Amino acid sequence: MFYLIGLGLGDPKDITVKGLEIVKQCTRVYLEMYTSILGCPKEELEAFYGRPILLADRDLVEQGADEILAGSGEEDVALLVVGDPFGATTHTDFILRAKEKKIPYKVIHNASIMNAIGCCGLQLYKFGETVSIPYWDETWKPDSFYDKIKLNRLHNMHTLCLLDIKVKEPTLESLMRGRKEFMPPRFMTVAEAAQQLLVIVEKKDALERNTILNEQSLCVGLARVGHDNQRIVVSTLRDMASTDLGGPLHSIVIPAKEMHPLEVEFLQQFANLKLEDYNH
Amino acid sequence: MFYLIGLGLGDPKDITVKGLEIVKQCTRVYLEMYTSILGCPKEELEAFYGRPILLADRDLVEQGADEILAGSGEEDVALLVVGDPFGATTHTDFILRAKEKKIPYKVIHNASIMNAIGCCGLQLYKFGETVSIPYWDETWKPDSFYDKIKLNRLHNMHTLCLLDIKVKEPTLESLMRGRKEFMPPRFMTVAEAAQQLLVIVEKKDALERNTILNEQSLCVGLARVGHDNQRIVVSTLRDMASTDLGGPLHSIVIPAKEMHPLEVEFLQQFANLKLEDYNH
Repeated sequence: MFYLIGLGLGDPKDITVKGLEIVKQCTRVYLEMYTSILGCPKEELEAFYGRPILLADRDLVEQGADEILAGSGEEDVALLVVGDPFGATTHTDFILRAKEKKIPYKVIHNASIMNAIGCCGLQLYKFGETVSIPYWDETWKPDSFYDKIKLNRLHNMHTLCLLDIKVKEPTLESLMRGRKEFMPPRFMTVAEAAQQLLVIVEKKDALERNTILNEQSLCVGLARVGHDNQRIVVSTLRDMASTDLGGPLHSIVIPAKEMHPLEVEFLQQFANLKLEDYNH
Repeated sequence: MFYLIGLGLGDPKDITVKGLEIVKQCTRVYLEMYTSILGCPKEELEAFYGRPILLADRDLVEQGADEILAGSGEEDVALLVVGDPFGATTHTDFILRAKEKKIPYKVIHNASIMNAIGCCGLQLYKFGETVSIPYWDETWKPDSFYDKIKLNRLHNMHTLCLLDIKVKEPTLESLMRGRKEFMPPRFMTVAEAAQQLLVIVEKKDALERNTILNEQSLCVGLARVGHDNQRIVVSTLRDMASTDLGGPLHSIVIPAKEMHPLEVEFLQQFANLKLEDYNH
């Protein structure tokens, strides 16, 4: 049997009891390490499980499915993923490949940022399409995610913005030389995301007169959701651009313009400004 | 400390290792039993935890917060909820009340239908606002959720439809007599939801010429997500109206008109009709 097991928000003990029992009985256990990050070193996980873990990077997950799935028709093999197994397209694809090979599979669900984001008090069912904010570089500054935030704002829905993660990215130099050298991992902060949003907002200024989103619009910055050192800050987009929430992972939510009184009351505990009657 | 602990999808072993450790150390453990249902009898949970569980019905959760929170400044008290703690407004409200009383609290996240719905292969970030489909009766047939499905369809987003649950609903008779008698619990099936949707679709016919949703539109019916007897069926709305997926809980997804090839490929395994080039 092939098991795809969600680890939840990244602390070793966030795995479910069912998931842990399966990990202990498997012949091989892989950990997918590029669509998200663990909240602890791999060694801590190995100590907790009492068994070794094989790291699966992008190459192994996207091109080495055969290797991971090998033998899982007869024995038990697990692929661990941070969050819920269906959080990333890669894993859906992985299940299809198991099916092609007629390998039986089972999925063990867990919390992911897609539902744990409710911890800021904004109601989950009021979220519209989720967006991803990518790192910009000198020549590539995509902003199509802004249109989705705009659509959500126009229809009074919240937007969860997932922030870019760069893990095991080859350096430009190494690509040219044909041998693999990697950049240090980077995790976009709420400040970096807010800075990019401000650039977009200023560009759209003339067109939309800042009615959709402007530097005074509210946003919610979240760091390390579900961990003991979780932080949530509610501020204007302008202030978020200089807010330091510490280590990864970070996320941002752009709330709907009209919120339920209970949502406002919950957000207030994370804000320095008075949210009642706030309308930006 | 007051703990709000998500039980995940309802099997006893879906609790996280962290959650289980906390349950074992608490003085009192309550189980919230009206916004969702467990996949097993309460006794099975008690046997697994090795301790008694107090049932918390709507009255106790919504009006008896004082009773549940009593003493949790000094000792450890847990409220268990199926899914993730922030899935229902009630629980957000509960945390605010703990804060008012200056009781420290901690939330243990878990999977909920809001992220586990990814098991059908539709990408989570492409879901728009979630809707709830309520039971209709002779005189009350609300259909405002249709407008949200419509908006999602127009903007090429999937819609998760949560189906009504009636637990511990007083009978009309008992309300008039002033003593509490309850109706047997009811859980809306995918067939019942599809039947109500068909009624709405037929009513809107003249106005919209069935361009948004019609009886040939695709829908995904899901039952007991995350359990060993999970079922997923992809069919037309018309066929879903006579599809029996067995016991609760059920959910329906109305997919976006345009889907990613990977989404189509994944859905195909649950369908009798050929999905490629399907466009309704």
